[in-house]
Amino acid sequence: MNGAESLVATLVGQGVDICFANPGTSEMHFLAALGNNPKMRSVLCLFEGVATGAADGWYRMKDTPASTLLHLGPGLANGLANIHNAKRASSGMVNVVGEHSVSHLKYDPPLTSDIEGLARPLSHWVRRAESPDTIAWDAAQAVSKASEHPGQIATLILPGDTSWQTVTATPATSPVRADAHKAPSTARIEHIARVLRSGEPTLIVLANKATRGAALDKAGRVAAATGATLGSQFFTARIERGAGRVPLARIPYAVAQATAFLKDFRHIITVETREPVAFFAYPDKPSLLKAEGTLLHTLVDDDEDSEIAFDMLLQALGGTNTAPVLQPRIETPKPTGALNPTSIAHALAAALPEHCIVVDESLTTGRESMSLTMGALPHDLINNMGGSIGYATPVATGAALACPDRRVFCMVGDGSAMYTIQSLWTQAREGLNVTTIIFANNSYAILKAEYANMGAGAPGERALSMIDIDKPSIDWLAMAKSMGVPAVAVETAESFHKALVDSAREPGPSLIEVRL
Amino acid sequence: MNGAESLVATLVGQGVDICFANPGTSEMHFLAALGNNPKMRSVLCLFEGVATGAADGWYRMKDTPASTLLHLGPGLANGLANIHNAKRASSGMVNVVGEHSVSHLKYDPPLTSDIEGLARPLSHWVRRAESPDTIAWDAAQAVSKASEHPGQIATLILPGDTSWQTVTATPATSPVRADAHKAPSTARIEHIARVLRSGEPTLIVLANKATRGAALDKAGRVAAATGATLGSQFFTARIERGAGRVPLARIPYAVAQATAFLKDFRHIITVETREPVAFFAYPDKPSLLKAEGTLLHTLVDDDEDSEIAFDMLLQALGGTNTAPVLQPRIETPKPTGALNPTSIAHALAAALPEHCIVVDESLTTGRESMSLTMGALPHDLINNMGGSIGYATPVATGAALACPDRRVFCMVGDGSAMYTIQSLWTQAREGLNVTTIIFANNSYAILKAEYANMGAGAPGERALSMIDIDKPSIDWLAMAKSMGVPAVAVETAESFHKALVDSAREPGPSLIEVRL
Repeated sequence: MNGAESLVATLVGQGVDICFANPGTSEMHFLAALGNNPKMRSVLCLFEGVATGAADGWYRMKDTPASTLLHLGPGLANGLANIHNAKRASSGMVNVVGEHSVSHLKYDPPLTSDIEGLARPLSHWVRRAESPDTIAWDAAQAVSKASEHPGQIATLILPGDTSWQTVTATPATSPVRADAHKAPSTARIEHIARVLRSGEPTLIVLANKATRGAALDKAGRVAAATGATLGSQFFTARIERGAGRVPLARIPYAVAQATAFLKDFRHIITVETREPVAFFAYPDKPSLLKAEGTLLHTLVDDDEDSEIAFDMLLQALGGTNTAPVLQPRIETPKPTGALNPTSIAHALAAALPEHCIVVDESLTTGRESMSLTMGALPHDLINNMGGSIGYATPVATGAALACPDRRVFCMVGDGSAMYTIQSLWTQAREGLNVTTIIFANNSYAILKAEYANMGAGAPGERALSMIDIDKPSIDWLAMAKSMGVPAVAVETAESFHKALVDSAREPGPSLIEVRL
Repeated sequence: MNGAESLVATLVGQGVDICFANPGTSEMHFLAALGNNPKMRSVLCLFEGVATGAADGWYRMKDTPASTLLHLGPGLANGLANIHNAKRASSGMVNVVGEHSVSHLKYDPPLTSDIEGLARPLSHWVRRAESPDTIAWDAAQAVSKASEHPGQIATLILPGDTSWQTVTATPATSPVRADAHKAPSTARIEHIARVLRSGEPTLIVLANKATRGAALDKAGRVAAATGATLGSQFFTARIERGAGRVPLARIPYAVAQATAFLKDFRHIITVETREPVAFFAYPDKPSLLKAEGTLLHTLVDDDEDSEIAFDMLLQALGGTNTAPVLQPRIETPKPTGALNPTSIAHALAAALPEHCIVVDESLTTGRESMSLTMGALPHDLINNMGGSIGYATPVATGAALACPDRRVFCMVGDGSAMYTIQSLWTQAREGLNVTTIIFANNSYAILKAEYANMGAGAPGERALSMIDIDKPSIDWLAMAKSMGVPAVAVETAESFHKALVDSAREPGPSLIEVRL
């Protein structure tokens, strides 16, 4: 057994059984080890941003980390933007980054760079594997770190010689994974209970693991027992929503709407999140969105367990037996006529099949109208937590691998889709059940609004030409065809609805160009 | 005037009059300033790796830096791989990276990251612009740094408030740019002259600015006067080559061939480069390529001027009037029949028009046969210096903007092309004279050889499936169409030759899929 084989065996032994890979010369032994271990699934990606985004998507659905294989410093660099998004989503991930052998590094060959330096700003844990005898220990630590709550980014640097040398000692036993179910203090629960009993208008903002499963259900009971409003930030890692789920009010994106939404709450209680802040700074607009005089209270810290916290709170409130208010099913008729944010949302509401997954990076077209899908059949909604565009198509790829029986709808603007469009190829290769919905407005449309929001006035012709992407406009049917994904273009609400329904009937990937 | 306008005015005033941009919300004032300054050309790129690679291509042809506009830490991260390649090519570049306003940063909004931390490993100079009053000074320093010899990576972080606030003081005068023409010491020249006079077999390895213009001509005179061999590393930033140019012997890529090539030289003299080393480490293969007993001598350090050095050396040798040996023109007949590395090289040799630019990232198919184009019409050859794939299509984009009257041929493997394929869109948008030649072998073919070189044996079916990219094979005609670039596919040497000739006749971009 060599170092690479020990590493792969350890990953698999610790439950990390998928690797999103874009290998290079220095990773050939790792590739061999991947190929020789039948318990490890290797998924080839044609760009590293696809690999890291797919690992994020995997974690969002599984709550366990995937691994990535990246080729030295530049390969890691290509994956960093989606590592940033994953980090902000509290997704755990184990990155294996190839490196020159120790003996070769001192000659500073062309692909040499400061891998630790590149890894540190966006990793919680970075280590260089120094020996094939200790790599099992390193790998187990990486998985342990990535599996913490909240999920962490663990980056293990793998020199070629560590990879190819023979393991001579018995691999060290793996560290026990800390299964953290940390509870908030009783004092904090009592404080929050007092706030809720006051009857003053209160918003409970849920995030991360609190927006689904038993934690969400129990949050719903707290709200029903106290009259508090349940809400979410504008972006959430994953929400279980739709008919029969506890509904959450979404804090709007735009500063004016967000402050208007928040202004009547006397209290904001945070659960696995922080005080709502503006996404960007604008001249003469506030960064903090709550009203002056609104009081902020932490119920659940990032590393605490929301389900336990809500159990404690329900006991303190005497509300254990209160039923949560659930979202009723809203039957949305098939829309007809022109495509616009409302008819698009209606088409989604009517077409989304039960238990599907919606990955949203639609920025201008889709996201302001997602409230119209609240009464759709139950589904999961995934958002971009880090704001770096190009997250949706990779995350959809990883989510589809994590949940092969569930259709994934990836809603993405044309500008964002172009960042990591190589995802389509992996979707075709693996036959993934992903419907990519391209909102083709031939523009970074959000920037037109932001230009004005920034007080930069109306963009002149030259500035506007840097926001529009219509010269040439992208031919999305050709793009999909180039990577083996069947595609249709739609220009009406009814044809969009039909395309959504059709795509969910056929296994494998498809793409819908929504012409706006 | 606001900070952004002061920044753009300073860049233009210092000769940096092109900006490869992918803007976001925090850069709207910079975008407005770009649009309002008619002396600045803005080129929109749909992915940041295209922007930084294009800036590299611009520098390779102009020897002056371009600027890039990148959106916060993740935007910079997306550009880092091609910044790495540019850094290794000694290309200067001024990166402007947007950032949240100071007042907003403390709330840690989603797009926040350690931008300095991300920039430092691959930048020579990093600064955060703290005030609109001093940004002109900062920008002038960035340009000065980027313009040093060898070229440097300068990264200026631009907070939103620095960008939008009004300049209240007269912008500070710009730093004087150090015009370095640093000469080697006389003692060193005398030492090298003694080596050359010894008559012992000597290889002079030229790099960076020594592989073109007057420096190359004078190196040719030294070789003619002394019998020394002129050579280059396997990869060179830019070589002026072809008929009438001083020819350079290329040190092979593979370790066995490289050591065989070098073994008979008693002396290796380096000019703006270092001792030849293997690109990767392999078990049981050396990192250093020269034979034991071969002596290494530095003639020109990285920051010295090769033309001055060769002038001094010619004087010391009494060879000032020696004519260089020039490459004779070799008329290559149009090849026919099957496509293979030899017939492909023959087609290129026959078709390359005078003064064209060849950007080579063909790895397996093209690069081992480039010697067959030595007698083609004079042209420039550009290589990937950093080894991070996905450099060629962006570099070709930047080179075409730098030299609008010269056709650029971008030779690229399918695997590499997929990294930064968004370049095609910018080429279509700007009507650039780029012929992209895709060597479609449906494989990371180099890795098959490297797998064996690494001693990992013959790849099994599962490992092989991670090297082949044929499921699905990429439809390059559809890919080109999707971004508005006309394309043809060729399957014979004669049709490849015809496609090359045709592409050079029509202005604007085109793509040739070479089916292998």
